[in-house]
Amino acid sequence: MLVVATIVALTLLGAGGFAVANGAAALLPERPEGCDQPDRTVQLYAVELPRDGNQIRLGYGLTPETASYPGPTMEMTEGECLAVTLHNQVPAATLEQLRTDPTHPLGVSLHVHGVKYTQLSDGTVQSYSYVPPGQSRTYTWYAKKRDRTAGTPGTAGYWWYHDHVVGGPHGTKGIGSGLFGGLVVRRPGDLRPDRTYMTVFGDQQSINLRRGAAADTCDQENPQPGPTCIVAKKGERVEFIVVGIGNDMHTFHVHGHSWADTRTGVVNGTNAETDQVPTIDNKTLGPGDSFGVQIVAGDSVGPGHWMIHCHMQFHSDAGMYTTMHVLDENGNMPPGGEHDHATAGAATAPAGAAPAGGDAAPAGSGAAAHQHN
Amino acid sequence: MLVVATIVALTLLGAGGFAVANGAAALLPERPEGCDQPDRTVQLYAVELPRDGNQIRLGYGLTPETASYPGPTMEMTEGECLAVTLHNQVPAATLEQLRTDPTHPLGVSLHVHGVKYTQLSDGTVQSYSYVPPGQSRTYTWYAKKRDRTAGTPGTAGYWWYHDHVVGGPHGTKGIGSGLFGGLVVRRPGDLRPDRTYMTVFGDQQSINLRRGAAADTCDQENPQPGPTCIVAKKGERVEFIVVGIGNDMHTFHVHGHSWADTRTGVVNGTNAETDQVPTIDNKTLGPGDSFGVQIVAGDSVGPGHWMIHCHMQFHSDAGMYTTMHVLDENGNMPPGGEHDHATAGAATAPAGAAPAGGDAAPAGSGAAAHQHN
Amino acid sequence: MLVVATIVALTLLGAGGFAVANGAAALLPERPEGCDQPDRTVQLYAVELPRDGNQIRLGYGLTPETASYPGPTMEMTEGECLAVTLHNQVPAATLEQLRTDPTHPLGVSLHVHGVKYTQLSDGTVQSYSYVPPGQSRTYTWYAKKRDRTAGTPGTAGYWWYHDHVVGGPHGTKGIGSGLFGGLVVRRPGDLRPDRTYMTVFGDQQSINLRRGAAADTCDQENPQPGPTCIVAKKGERVEFIVVGIGNDMHTFHVHGHSWADTRTGVVNGTNAETDQVPTIDNKTLGPGDSFGVQIVAGDSVGPGHWMIHCHMQFHSDAGMYTTMHVLDENGNMPPGGEHDHATAGAATAPAGAAPAGGDAAPAGSGAAAHQHN
Repeated sequence: MLVVATIVALTLLGAGGFAVANGAAALLPERPEGCDQPDRTVQLYAVELPRDGNQIRLGYGLTPETASYPGPTMEMTEGECLAVTLHNQVPAATLEQLRTDPTHPLGVSLHVHGVKYTQLSDGTVQSYSYVPPGQSRTYTWYAKKRDRTAGTPGTAGYWWYHDHVVGGPHGTKGIGSGLFGGLVVRRPGDLRPDRTYMTVFGDQQSINLRRGAAADTCDQENPQPGPTCIVAKKGERVEFIVVGIGNDMHTFHVHGHSWADTRTGVVNGTNAETDQVPTIDNKTLGPGDSFGVQIVAGDSVGPGHWMIHCHMQFHSDAGMYTTMHVLDENGNMPPGGEHDHATAGAATAPAGAAPAGGDAAPAGSGAAAHQHN
Repeated sequence: MLVVATIVALTLLGAGGFAVANGAAALLPERPEGCDQPDRTVQLYAVELPRDGNQIRLGYGLTPETASYPGPTMEMTEGECLAVTLHNQVPAATLEQLRTDPTHPLGVSLHVHGVKYTQLSDGTVQSYSYVPPGQSRTYTWYAKKRDRTAGTPGTAGYWWYHDHVVGGPHGTKGIGSGLFGGLVVRRPGDLRPDRTYMTVFGDQQSINLRRGAAADTCDQENPQPGPTCIVAKKGERVEFIVVGIGNDMHTFHVHGHSWADTRTGVVNGTNAETDQVPTIDNKTLGPGDSFGVQIVAGDSVGPGHWMIHCHMQFHSDAGMYTTMHVLDENGNMPPGGEHDHATAGAATAPAGAAPAGGDAAPAGSGAAAHQHN
Repeated sequence: MLVVATIVALTLLGAGGFAVANGAAALLPERPEGCDQPDRTVQLYAVELPRDGNQIRLGYGLTPETASYPGPTMEMTEGECLAVTLHNQVPAATLEQLRTDPTHPLGVSLHVHGVKYTQLSDGTVQSYSYVPPGQSRTYTWYAKKRDRTAGTPGTAGYWWYHDHVVGGPHGTKGIGSGLFGGLVVRRPGDLRPDRTYMTVFGDQQSINLRRGAAADTCDQENPQPGPTCIVAKKGERVEFIVVGIGNDMHTFHVHGHSWADTRTGVVNGTNAETDQVPTIDNKTLGPGDSFGVQIVAGDSVGPGHWMIHCHMQFHSDAGMYTTMHVLDENGNMPPGGEHDHATAGAATAPAGAAPAGGDAAPAGSGAAAHQHN
């Protein structure tokens, strides 16, 4: 009830806080400085998707038919200006169901991290920059370059976009229903990935809003990359866009692979400064955080089913994990590491594993022999 | 009750743990090495302030009359030595009310992060370096420079100072009542801000111990910078000192503005190493963490009411946000982004917003036409 | 109950998810590429240790007799390949007590962070790479160097190894019982520490699984470095390996000492890029995170009992702290900072502390005079 009371106070603030009357001022700018004319335009649709159990699901898509959660990963290059027109096709009745306060307006918006936009593209109720049901609105994003004089960094990075209106003033219900997606801003010269995956860590131990088995539904015979199937051939450059949503803290841990704690996960340069960048394989992230990681699949470690999980033990135990399935160079998954269904509860060192340590032959404990071939 | 029991154990440890008897040793040093004589002295007063509802409020001030929470932002330059004399004017009866354990001594202290100080300036009960009611004590802080031989970094950074004694051995009640402030240590050559703001993220969704509307009380006609009013003209260099207190994790997110994840938020240098520094607009912080961010207000994005909030959704929904009010170069806030009170529940794309996307004219959903002028 | 249900789903996924049948693929590699022959071998024993109250305790050791929690700190140099043979001497009955699911296999494993290993050394049930009771298995770790062409960083860093099988698919009960230890991978030219300490921050306000007074049991007359005694002489280079385990967020804060937020805590190089590395004295860490910090004990600040604690106030209040006891160069602890047992509840400024600020002589509040000598 404390929370409710505070929201009311906030609403009053929102109403009263912007009563600025100053006729002499210029208008709010339509577009960011440096972006006189968009270089590209994109149509984006917000639609309702089939429910997940009782949960309402919404998604962004480049067409209404291809909407998904996460939405499409956008890509820009520093210096570029992008105009995204959002068409709100989510039924008003659905938005009403998600509303936590009857005075809160109905609508869907597009709020983006990292790049530049004016108040008219902020995607908030306060700035009046959202889209009522059935309407459209154009948001302008500018991937500004670094300004060496001002000391401001470029906007290259791994970002995300999301609703900021559905349900309440911070889009909590919009995000929680699926209205989010990734944005990569590259710098000329950046290494290009072979595959890009979104892993959005959220509440209730979810990855991309899926829990447990639903987070990894790869077809074992013919794995297809997608929101619930992370697959790569050995040697491919895989890029993860990692985003935190909701209320909980998480950590992003990958087995067998590590990365530099830099803008891209890659390490550049040749001097002493570079050598002091930490290498990590587990990174804490809070809601709103986003970062990108480029790794080379199976580098040195080979193919296999490499776990990706939150290292908070009660999160991973409750199902907050997925798998990066690394195939060999020919697209096959070697045998030898799989779990033998027939001998659940048993395990043994693989035959031939002993040259270094001279392990004892597997015996006892009900273990069945397990061969590589 | 577990907590209480453990505190008792700790107290016993504190009592027994330091019974060192070694007559041959030298005394503990009065001041840090390299700081034979303070370069400056500051008088700091700890006083009781008016309650916030039922909550006891304390504050540090350069005079008793100007005490506030956060306390005054201190500034030092690397190489400098500062002597801060703390005068404890908080009534003993108030300190007693905040005490969690009747055997815990009454007093107020000054514990600082980042800079150098000896045990006699540690500000803890264990080191005997606190100030009983009505007394004074001088704390010596040394902003040591980098030592290239030892590999130890300089102390330049964004730090905070706080009580470490009120209520219990870690100053939990002192911090929670308002006994904290910021410290900036600069390096010669650092860019200087036009304005510096503290944003202390704490429990119960508080910013600077204020919740909801109380965190942003700017006078719209004549906004004055202060703990509850963040305002700047477009182009001004604004510096945030961000500190986490209490028990909860938070994230610091600013709309429309991003920064480099460096010592100052600014990015320097010209080579490849620099280009791999992440740019961020959302940063996770835990209690005790502090960092600084310099941004250029309205850079590329223009004036407006730019939200600053914790991106944990239940925190922002419960009121954990404030606003950076960016005026135009003349000090005016342009119209065009404000919420129309008369049409609450309605929204529309501003007229003239359509050049890029050819948006439909606002219609339906009870929306009223909204013009820029 | 939600958790239990989800674990069941996970188990099914684990069973079904790896049913890959592709006869044409090569076998999973035995060792990482670049590691044809291990440079060194280590024998590691997993044993049961005396209980801590009701809590089962397990430990890794280089011999069964020296097993401890944390286990022995391993050290490697980039380019090196290490074969660790794990002997599981934990009684099956003990493992059964820790099992959360009767279909989960019994065993102990070795999962390592940061360095390279193939699926056969992953230490997970899914990869079939664990050790049933009474058996042994060799795990191969490769401290791969940086690959400048691929942009992949070297594996130098501060890591940890841990069980990934005891109790459930993520080793939650193994880690929680003590099956973890540190791994340092160095780069040629790295500064060498005089002393290395592990500080593993975990649930229930524990450091190295000890709570409150049990975390700091230094013999005051003859302090011996160990898991529960952090001691150093002034000027010694002390290295902390900081690891997060369990479910909770923590922060690692050290009084009087700070470090660069780099791979080692040390700052190298001479140019502008280096100068923008943040200096910190408080770092947030989540479970699975690990980092290393090298500091010079007592640098500028002198000897004393320097607190190390989690800055989440309810954690520190509940006993989550230990102490770095910094002796003078001769190995003595100077008097002057200790708490006077006879005057518990009283405090005063030390005599002679007044040159800078001209403090008032201690008086009132029941304080007894306190002299340095």
